[in-house]
Amino acid sequence: MQDIDIIVKADNVLTMDKHFTAFNKGAIAVHKGSILAVGNAGDIMRKYTSGLVIGGNGFVAFPGLVNTHSHSPMVYFRGLADDLPLKEWLEEHIWPAEKKWLSPAFVADASELAFLEMLKSGITSCNDMYFYGDELAAAAKRIGIRAVIGAGILDFPTSTAQNAAEYLEKAEAFISRWKDDRLVTPCIAPHSAYACSPETLQKAKALSEKHSVRLHIHLSETEWEVGELMALYQSRPVNFLDSIGLFDESVTAAHCIWVEDEEIEIMAKRGVNVSHCMESNLKLASGFAPVASMLAQGIRVTFGTDGAASNNDLNILSEMSTTAKVHKALSKDPTILSARRVMLMATRWGAEAIGLGDVTGSIEMGKAADIVLADVRKPHLSPMYDPYSSIVYSMSAADVDSVIVDGKLVLNRRTLTTGDEQAILNRASDWGHRIAKKSG
Amino acid sequence: MQDIDIIVKADNVLTMDKHFTAFNKGAIAVHKGSILAVGNAGDIMRKYTSGLVIGGNGFVAFPGLVNTHSHSPMVYFRGLADDLPLKEWLEEHIWPAEKKWLSPAFVADASELAFLEMLKSGITSCNDMYFYGDELAAAAKRIGIRAVIGAGILDFPTSTAQNAAEYLEKAEAFISRWKDDRLVTPCIAPHSAYACSPETLQKAKALSEKHSVRLHIHLSETEWEVGELMALYQSRPVNFLDSIGLFDESVTAAHCIWVEDEEIEIMAKRGVNVSHCMESNLKLASGFAPVASMLAQGIRVTFGTDGAASNNDLNILSEMSTTAKVHKALSKDPTILSARRVMLMATRWGAEAIGLGDVTGSIEMGKAADIVLADVRKPHLSPMYDPYSSIVYSMSAADVDSVIVDGKLVLNRRTLTTGDEQAILNRASDWGHRIAKKSG
Repeated sequence: MQDIDIIVKADNVLTMDKHFTAFNKGAIAVHKGSILAVGNAGDIMRKYTSGLVIGGNGFVAFPGLVNTHSHSPMVYFRGLADDLPLKEWLEEHIWPAEKKWLSPAFVADASELAFLEMLKSGITSCNDMYFYGDELAAAAKRIGIRAVIGAGILDFPTSTAQNAAEYLEKAEAFISRWKDDRLVTPCIAPHSAYACSPETLQKAKALSEKHSVRLHIHLSETEWEVGELMALYQSRPVNFLDSIGLFDESVTAAHCIWVEDEEIEIMAKRGVNVSHCMESNLKLASGFAPVASMLAQGIRVTFGTDGAASNNDLNILSEMSTTAKVHKALSKDPTILSARRVMLMATRWGAEAIGLGDVTGSIEMGKAADIVLADVRKPHLSPMYDPYSSIVYSMSAADVDSVIVDGKLVLNRRTLTTGDEQAILNRASDWGHRIAKKSG
Repeated sequence: MQDIDIIVKADNVLTMDKHFTAFNKGAIAVHKGSILAVGNAGDIMRKYTSGLVIGGNGFVAFPGLVNTHSHSPMVYFRGLADDLPLKEWLEEHIWPAEKKWLSPAFVADASELAFLEMLKSGITSCNDMYFYGDELAAAAKRIGIRAVIGAGILDFPTSTAQNAAEYLEKAEAFISRWKDDRLVTPCIAPHSAYACSPETLQKAKALSEKHSVRLHIHLSETEWEVGELMALYQSRPVNFLDSIGLFDESVTAAHCIWVEDEEIEIMAKRGVNVSHCMESNLKLASGFAPVASMLAQGIRVTFGTDGAASNNDLNILSEMSTTAKVHKALSKDPTILSARRVMLMATRWGAEAIGLGDVTGSIEMGKAADIVLADVRKPHLSPMYDPYSSIVYSMSAADVDSVIVDGKLVLNRRTLTTGDEQAILNRASDWGHRIAKKSG
């Protein structure tokens, strides 16, 4: 009998490995950050012992969900301005608010709230893009969430840099500081084809190659963007980015709504990963990404929440449910986006799309222990015929009971073990009062 | 100082009255089933005292949500068959399951689970359509939810009746038994224009008029239905039902997806109420109801969950969020379906649409006390700039802390006070095992 850190027991353990292996009355052995073993509870309990055994009857365990596109600190602007046209929303509300409030302290406090919210909805890894990456990274480590953090690159000044050269220089320093961290993975995040010049984009790509880090970018979110690129370069966004050599498997492109068949083919050929942000796209009326076509062409489509200013929550379970349902209706085909496929997109594919396929995304021996334990003894989850269906179509964030990230029990029966939730909420309330006063 | 049954206190009390009156630091005085007063907490606490004061800082109170189209007992088929074409889903899974399992005991047990689930997501009134209405009504009274219960009318036999005449006779007896109940309101529910002959529909309408009860019907849920009506009567469903005199303000029509502009005009002119069942429509790929057009024409569009076999939950908060977002994207207009409008559709309009506008749907003096108290001290609800936005775009069912129906605290800090939740879940699990064994 080996004494280990944690044993997780559940009625159903969905490993999300390549064979969709699932264990009825299963268990997971967790030690020193990693998964030692997964299997039938009887077998696991014969081999291992632990002072911390969680779950049991009435629980389901699955890999931590992956949020492949987020702007965590924007939680402080959640609900500040809704039901507005995109241009008015951005130019009269969000950008002025960012201009007024963006600071290291804002990012540190807001991202703690965001990471807490993510853990409480079963997200164990995110792919974040914002400013003040060091503060974001430090908050991720404090709260204990796995995060790929993109150093933002723009051509215009913000409080963080004056021009592209300064953003790029700071990005390289950021990458150097964080490249060996276990929880935080730096990447480079040129904002978009319309907010960065071709030169800036190519320099960002060169940095990504030099340091072997991922590249995270917004792509074809709005019809306006397509028109802008056509005006600037006589080229649609995908064609343009491909022509300057940006695309390969190390790229995660968020949104990808206004992409035509030919562009989908290019993305598929280059192995570009897509972060589909359905709820944000719907709420801003940006459009419907052609997810069924992208999947049919073999593109790895995954789920992102986008920022909470346009969503208005950081909840991949809800993205999964909405996405599965909306695309059935759009395709007039209820068989597409099955519950298993959607689970795959939210777990293993999500991890692969942000470069962490070897680390997380499934419950397999040797991977980091990033595990969600959900309590399914609830009216809306009863009876349960198929756990994949229950998770995708009926489970809500509040059913997430406990969360392990990198072998550490960071959420224990919905209580954060790594910080003081009440203090985080109080800080959010304080910031909210100040922001409301200035914006009112 | 008057001693009363319950005082509800909240940071925000949204009355949803005609002026959208809201009270910061508000309170509601509840006594003998009704709302005695609503106002500023200071004023209420000076006039009333109670041994039961609930809520306070960190809570928001709003009228109980109204579910205008449900088939409660179908919760026992939740997730039994997903991701299938409608015809295969109905003919190979749902209808055989109903044929096998439908019984008074099934309906009694399953509807308790459904009503518990509804209360836990803030639904205080539902408009149900199924078989064995007496068992449904009794379950509603046991659990303590307000329910309009439709006696189902078909032309073909089920275990409940052999033919239309027998359904109609049983419906009339059901109406007589329940017409004076405070919580349960009987109505008549001919299934649809394709499952009932014109004669049957007209007899159902006559019964509705004779007893002054509502008429609840499915309408234009699928393209197939439109084709079927064209083949049978050379008329689209709305035109057909209008031609036989079915339409007036006492009608609630569920779905209304495949309706053209001319049909929308007819429904508007007749004052037909619409139950929009977005999540079910999406999941079955039935299509997108033209909600923006219906609202623009002045139709009272409200929210229904449909049955949990096609949803897969009974959660109006989630319908509100999904509907607001999807119709923004469909209309390419983020300003439509504002948070306030969506709240109105889910509360006051919902009550009006099921004939209970004088009884419930808003927090106003003299109305029945049907109240939701939500706990907003949560990461995903922080910070809060606008309570309507928080409820529609960020709140989830699990944030519902306590629920009052008809002046009775039926859910107290998420604990059912009228029954044994664990026993209800155990019965669901038992039924689920039996159903899975036979269906597998």
